[in-house]
Amino acid sequence: MERHDLPAARIPKRWYNVLPDLPRAPDDFLDPRTREPVGTEYMERLLPKALVAQETSPERWIAIPEEVRAAYRLWRPTPLYRALALERHLDTPAEIYFKYEGASPSGSHKLNSALAQAYYAKLEGHERLVTDTGAGQWGSALSMACSLFGIKALVYMVRASYETKPYRRHFMETFGQEVLPSPGPHTEFGRTLLKEAPDHPGSEATAVSEALETVRLNDGDRFSMGAFAGHVLLHQTVVGLETREQLEELGKQPDFLVASVGCGSNMGGFAFPFVGDKLDGRDLTILAAEPAACPTLTSGTYRYDFADASGLGPMARTYTLGHGFVPPPIHSGGLRYHGAAPLVGLARHEGIIDSRAYAQKAVFEAGTLFARLHGLLPAPESAHAIRAAMDLAVECREQRRRAVIVFCYSGHGLLDLGAYGSYTAGEMADTEPYEAALAAGDPALAAPAGR
Amino acid sequence: MERHDLPAARIPKRWYNVLPDLPRAPDDFLDPRTREPVGTEYMERLLPKALVAQETSPERWIAIPEEVRAAYRLWRPTPLYRALALERHLDTPAEIYFKYEGASPSGSHKLNSALAQAYYAKLEGHERLVTDTGAGQWGSALSMACSLFGIKALVYMVRASYETKPYRRHFMETFGQEVLPSPGPHTEFGRTLLKEAPDHPGSEATAVSEALETVRLNDGDRFSMGAFAGHVLLHQTVVGLETREQLEELGKQPDFLVASVGCGSNMGGFAFPFVGDKLDGRDLTILAAEPAACPTLTSGTYRYDFADASGLGPMARTYTLGHGFVPPPIHSGGLRYHGAAPLVGLARHEGIIDSRAYAQKAVFEAGTLFARLHGLLPAPESAHAIRAAMDLAVECREQRRRAVIVFCYSGHGLLDLGAYGSYTAGEMADTEPYEAALAAGDPALAAPAGR
Repeated sequence: MERHDLPAARIPKRWYNVLPDLPRAPDDFLDPRTREPVGTEYMERLLPKALVAQETSPERWIAIPEEVRAAYRLWRPTPLYRALALERHLDTPAEIYFKYEGASPSGSHKLNSALAQAYYAKLEGHERLVTDTGAGQWGSALSMACSLFGIKALVYMVRASYETKPYRRHFMETFGQEVLPSPGPHTEFGRTLLKEAPDHPGSEATAVSEALETVRLNDGDRFSMGAFAGHVLLHQTVVGLETREQLEELGKQPDFLVASVGCGSNMGGFAFPFVGDKLDGRDLTILAAEPAACPTLTSGTYRYDFADASGLGPMARTYTLGHGFVPPPIHSGGLRYHGAAPLVGLARHEGIIDSRAYAQKAVFEAGTLFARLHGLLPAPESAHAIRAAMDLAVECREQRRRAVIVFCYSGHGLLDLGAYGSYTAGEMADTEPYEAALAAGDPALAAPAGR
Repeated sequence: MERHDLPAARIPKRWYNVLPDLPRAPDDFLDPRTREPVGTEYMERLLPKALVAQETSPERWIAIPEEVRAAYRLWRPTPLYRALALERHLDTPAEIYFKYEGASPSGSHKLNSALAQAYYAKLEGHERLVTDTGAGQWGSALSMACSLFGIKALVYMVRASYETKPYRRHFMETFGQEVLPSPGPHTEFGRTLLKEAPDHPGSEATAVSEALETVRLNDGDRFSMGAFAGHVLLHQTVVGLETREQLEELGKQPDFLVASVGCGSNMGGFAFPFVGDKLDGRDLTILAAEPAACPTLTSGTYRYDFADASGLGPMARTYTLGHGFVPPPIHSGGLRYHGAAPLVGLARHEGIIDSRAYAQKAVFEAGTLFARLHGLLPAPESAHAIRAAMDLAVECREQRRRAVIVFCYSGHGLLDLGAYGSYTAGEMADTEPYEAALAAGDPALAAPAGR
């Protein structure tokens, strides 16, 4: 395995904002009560002002505060590896590279935005950030970031993960932060859901609803998002900016950029810095790897929908499976979200991003093979990208194409070993794909509100 | 937090062998049947020949094979950090640095030797490496290393850890390797122990016994050690050699070098490259941080004893609590071993190394504080070194001493979150210190054989 590093001085000094380079502006967020575009006042009650400003900034480059850049130095720049053993194993003429975000102290790319959000919230004098987390990677990152910048965090964790992944919960609590299961008895929305279904497994959408309700009731709170919003994707562009520099140093141009997509923060951060090349006419495929059980970009529709389950938060136009959809409890908890980040949805709608969906066992097969060949155990989320990269490399073999495939290794799988244990023991089942559930008339797929 | 990196070209090209620089040669290993020094034939049936040669080599520098160095490149050189937030928190004039081995793909320094051992075993045509593991860090490292070099591994895992730490077992199995609990029904020694005590928690010593018995019965097997032997400490000197270069670049000389000691591989690898300075007269304290429940260097005696529980393996002269001692099941499973590596024992006997022992809750207090201040969650083993470094820094404050304290952060604690969860919830108890158990006449402390 070849490894390519950047010197510390080349941690990006600016985030890249894709907005001015997209073919058209994204549609406005709508206030769910009025269905009119949300105003600044509404947004600033929800988020730190600096983040609201970033959300609609027309500037292509936004300076990274020195304090945030110093914190990035904890583990950045991250290496770009060439997966030579995987190339040999697949007998492909393609070159396979991956950007390795797994050595981040919280275990994934999520810390890139968490540090920025904790910094701005502290700077503006807020007391606490309230957020949702699925598998726990975002909650872990935000807990750590808030601990480093000296501010409190409250994390609503999807109940399915809260109960089956206690390690992530312990992680957040070790950093001194509060973790509550969603749905849970601490909010009105949570109590309503539990009354209807005491075993409700929760989803990122239910956790978002509870977080929003909490923020609305406490003036010292602000909401924090691990994906979805444009400012989160903006912060994640350090991933793609570094990757670009590393590929340039190697004299390589990517033919395929691959990332897993739950909501889209790692895809956005990894691929957006290359979007200009594609729009300038370069033959570049940007491929989103999704779970078959929750194939938002592959099987969803592009329209206005709620970002949360309760319809309390803003509405956004993007790809969605419907905000009432509760994905089955697959092991890639981070990908269990009904909608795509609006910027990723727009990019898909404009033909900039393609997508494919993969069944769970095929994903773990890829993750396990990769670990044995390269000594790195990927998060199940990242294993989706590995699966997609492998399939592309096999297609290149059939086409005798010497393509350059680059994927984002978004996080490590050390806290997903229960799932790997189940796969290795032959006990893992594939969940029903979305289409089959839809055909069978699953009530979880009921038509959502929208306009 | 300041971070100091070395460029890739400065991964050490040679391991440092402390033997020629010690005040005297270590005593011979003895054959347990004859009590005579073991011969080469005996050792080569046990270990790959290259490792037997390293064990007694008079050469100060031993070349690292290019294949091993290429594998080190996966994560080396590792960073040296300055813990500024911890210094401020403790209000100490001392400077605190740490060498960070936690970003290794297997999670700890153990991979430094595992890769070398898997490489030599494969080169010499052996079919399988058989080993013991306590908390699972060594077993994880060897499983991964054997997977990378294409050779089989069999890991006897201390039963207490096998049952309470399934994630580590899943890790090894994901890499395609076999894991068995010790004591277990697969060896004669294991069956004997289970007959006497069906709930036997096991210890590193019982696992060593079962591994040795297995190797003896299978010609294609060789034994692999995660610590104890000189060649293991030799491989670990990449840690100290890099640290030395990093401190030199900063213009710093260490006054205190601190590492946790179970058997001594991270202490040996981290501190041995500085031993020459100390013997040349420099005022340098090398401090071993041990668990109060198993304080080998602090409370043991220096004499011949068995390395394993059954008396099957070679005898060595070192510090020991007696090979019949079964340490209580503390969370730092990697430190639950009755003896010290003979080279570390000799260094202690010659006054080169000092030691202190720490109770479990004080260790987790230090680990949790460190995580909150620096965003890195240490393994409980490493948290012993953090506890010791903190206590030294406080003593420096009292003495108004601007000392340079450097500790080895041997591994991350992501697979120890159950223990952190127990600590955070206030449910952790301190185990009985060794001295109290001794005074109470605990039969586990029965006097061992020896000469």
